[in-house]
Amino acid sequence: MRILLVGAQGTIGRGIAAELGQRHDILEAGRNSGSVRLDLADGKSVHRALEPLAPLDAIVSAAGHVAWGPLLELTPDQWDFSVNNKLMGQVVLALVGAQYLRDGGSITLTTGVLADEPVVGGAAASLANGGIEAFVRAAAIELPRGLRINAVSPGVVAESMDDYAPFFRGFEPVPATRVALAYSRSVEGADTGKVYAAR
Amino acid sequence: MRILLVGAQGTIGRGIAAELGQRHDILEAGRNSGSVRLDLADGKSVHRALEPLAPLDAIVSAAGHVAWGPLLELTPDQWDFSVNNKLMGQVVLALVGAQYLRDGGSITLTTGVLADEPVVGGAAASLANGGIEAFVRAAAIELPRGLRINAVSPGVVAESMDDYAPFFRGFEPVPATRVALAYSRSVEGADTGKVYAAR
Repeated sequence: MRILLVGAQGTIGRGIAAELGQRHDILEAGRNSGSVRLDLADGKSVHRALEPLAPLDAIVSAAGHVAWGPLLELTPDQWDFSVNNKLMGQVVLALVGAQYLRDGGSITLTTGVLADEPVVGGAAASLANGGIEAFVRAAAIELPRGLRINAVSPGVVAESMDDYAPFFRGFEPVPATRVALAYSRSVEGADTGKVYAAR
Repeated sequence: MRILLVGAQGTIGRGIAAELGQRHDILEAGRNSGSVRLDLADGKSVHRALEPLAPLDAIVSAAGHVAWGPLLELTPDQWDFSVNNKLMGQVVLALVGAQYLRDGGSITLTTGVLADEPVVGGAAASLANGGIEAFVRAAAIELPRGLRINAVSPGVVAESMDDYAPFFRGFEPVPATRVALAYSRSVEGADTGKVYAAR
């Protein structure tokens, strides 16, 4: 398969590349790295990046930033950033990407444990994750040509604990290799409209 | 209690006013109707509208529009409209409103069945609803002063079937009087971080 992996240089992205790269061609994409450059917050940039790559068999997003901060201190700009990146950035990738996928191709987005289990400082992440999960369920029943769409909801990733441990006390870290298996299920399986909890 | 009801003139809003108005003072708010005028897509308008009303005991939102249409035909403007209204409009109402609530006051937002059960044409509604539900769970653990926040997730409302029946074939309509009870539980109960399914 020819798989576009957005966010390839992130912790989860590297795990996905290691897992799926054993059996498939991975096209690594990122905002500032990889052979494909694109900015999820800019739909035109996504079109420009994907058009020359078609036809693709799968699009995987391990990308999308959100702002962190105390609920009542998050600024309108921080909410906009979060919505435009992790939430609508991934939605745009899915909707634009659908046009460049082969029949039966798949889209896999990334959500996260905060959709269900909030932590202090993570309200924007929770909102983005909840939106992505509902979007995936909705998009699955409308995508044409046998296209599939799923999401992976990782817990806090072990390799990210240096940065995130203070937010996630008591959460059991999940190795990126284990998280990557959920992306493999989505890409190499036959599900659609599913959210895989990688915990 | 002094309750601000946003979207008071909608089908659900009228049901809520009838239920809670039996025991409380309802301040009716809307974009084009009611004694309080505000536009949820404009944070400054929300501040201006709420400041003179403080202190409030409860804020209830039965508001927030979304665009409907086939998944691959929804335009960027339609996505923006949906995100700015039902999703971020309600988030702004909650975050601004929290400042004008008495200690122990409550916020009740509106989500809907499409968060879990998608229908064709409803992807933007699903996304907004999923985001609201996750936001409510997250905000509940950070709101200060004993403030509470919940959401009500109505099924398709019986009184709206003239408009929505073609989208909701096979869904059992719920009378607005029954939906209104869920708002009463949120406002007059003690829960926080909860999503009430009014189905």
